[in-house]
Amino acid sequence: LNAIEGPVGVVGLGAVGGSLARALAALPEPPALRGSSRSEADVRAACEAGLLERPCADAAEVAAGVRCLVIAVPLAATEGVLREASATLPADALVLDVGSLQGPPLAEAGRVGLAARFVACHPMAGTEASGFAAARADLFVDAPVWLSTGLDAADGVASAAEVFWRALGARPAWIEPEDHDARMVVASHLPQLVANALARVLEQGGLVPGDLGPGGSDMTRLAGSDPDMWRGLLAHSGPQAAALLRLLGRELDGWARALDAQDLDEIVRLMDETRRWRTS
Amino acid sequence: LNAIEGPVGVVGLGAVGGSLARALAALPEPPALRGSSRSEADVRAACEAGLLERPCADAAEVAAGVRCLVIAVPLAATEGVLREASATLPADALVLDVGSLQGPPLAEAGRVGLAARFVACHPMAGTEASGFAAARADLFVDAPVWLSTGLDAADGVASAAEVFWRALGARPAWIEPEDHDARMVVASHLPQLVANALARVLEQGGLVPGDLGPGGSDMTRLAGSDPDMWRGLLAHSGPQAAALLRLLGRELDGWARALDAQDLDEIVRLMDETRRWRTS
Repeated sequence: LNAIEGPVGVVGLGAVGGSLARALAALPEPPALRGSSRSEADVRAACEAGLLERPCADAAEVAAGVRCLVIAVPLAATEGVLREASATLPADALVLDVGSLQGPPLAEAGRVGLAARFVACHPMAGTEASGFAAARADLFVDAPVWLSTGLDAADGVASAAEVFWRALGARPAWIEPEDHDARMVVASHLPQLVANALARVLEQGGLVPGDLGPGGSDMTRLAGSDPDMWRGLLAHSGPQAAALLRLLGRELDGWARALDAQDLDEIVRLMDETRRWRTS
Repeated sequence: LNAIEGPVGVVGLGAVGGSLARALAALPEPPALRGSSRSEADVRAACEAGLLERPCADAAEVAAGVRCLVIAVPLAATEGVLREASATLPADALVLDVGSLQGPPLAEAGRVGLAARFVACHPMAGTEASGFAAARADLFVDAPVWLSTGLDAADGVASAAEVFWRALGARPAWIEPEDHDARMVVASHLPQLVANALARVLEQGGLVPGDLGPGGSDMTRLAGSDPDMWRGLLAHSGPQAAALLRLLGRELDGWARALDAQDLDEIVRLMDETRRWRTS
């Protein structure tokens, strides 16, 4: 099963799906591509970029006859897309979901009868920008990509997914979906929410983004992320994310107490610790 | 007073002072440069890069005969450097401090009798890396630089400082030192401390920096900053920074409550707000 020979179908042509389409089209032997998106502007832009053999009306039309179907839509839309695609998808096609959580799409693939050829994929290569305009052919080059399957994955499905990501220059690695998702709440959902909350405090402090230096700018970049994408993720991770926000709140309170007490030795000790961690 | 004709003295050859030396040496008509640093390694590296006409033992030796003296040391060391330099500095030399706060060095310049030719400068172009190894000739290109003087600045001092920064490609602008410093606690000290606190929570969550995607990585980049530099800044801004950390703590608590209540409409509303601010 060499999924990358195509045809490859991409449902969702935003920053991630669009980057996949661009990366596939840039291969030495590019596969035939078809794609669809809820956003007409993204479909039009992908066609104008010469990426799509033909645009499709929906996931069922994309899935018909493909060797590999890639789903790059917000998590809240994934189950609907899987259900639509399952009606027309060839029996031997590989199905890849590209998202930030893996447990929920794996469960959904099981519910619509696609568990055997389904691989949940999370490239650690996001961007706060959204839409096809933010798509880049090299988004996945050197990016780690976490992969997981259900217990009932068919033979060859795992290796086909690895081949797919390696062809795009990415570094696939396997993980248990529960471990992955718990880790992502810490590594990704927490920093996202902190960027949002910090942005609100800066705005309340009367600043505009142009007032920030490189540090403050980096610390609020994620505040530009797509709220609809996060709605679906936080519907799953909300309580764990909330616990982490409270943990951070207690941490901030400790720093505030040291600062109020002018205990700069303690502040420097803490900063030394985080510097050691960050540069490790 | 064309300060950039030199000789120019640079006290402190870390990331900022070293970048200044590199930027000055890269000018079409580079001034003669002299410099000193508490770090022997930085002095050696600056000499090996061919930047210094001669290395100096201390600020007094650097200041003798210069047309412009630039002080790029941690705030806690600034007053000592000013005092040393004042012994040998020519009467018509321009003195620039390059740091993140302006009120404290302006007061110090007054105390050592240098207020008339002193300009406090804050280039919004930092980096979390430190030492001469992190110096870059283009660090100040297109960077905003906040300038302020005391009330008793001599004629020509302000315009000489502007000419200096423009020659390096920077965009100087004037501000009241009190306004500047209050703004920097929000724009710079708060994001710095949030990066540190977030890094500790991520470390407690069992992550290493390599586990992070681009977002989490940006959100903790500042955690690699030099603790000694921050000691001096937070000695001045500590109580204001603490108040902002508590404000952020309350903000985080609001997000946590919405997440626990599965109130995703509220989360999306807040994210829409911050996205509008961030992309404005």
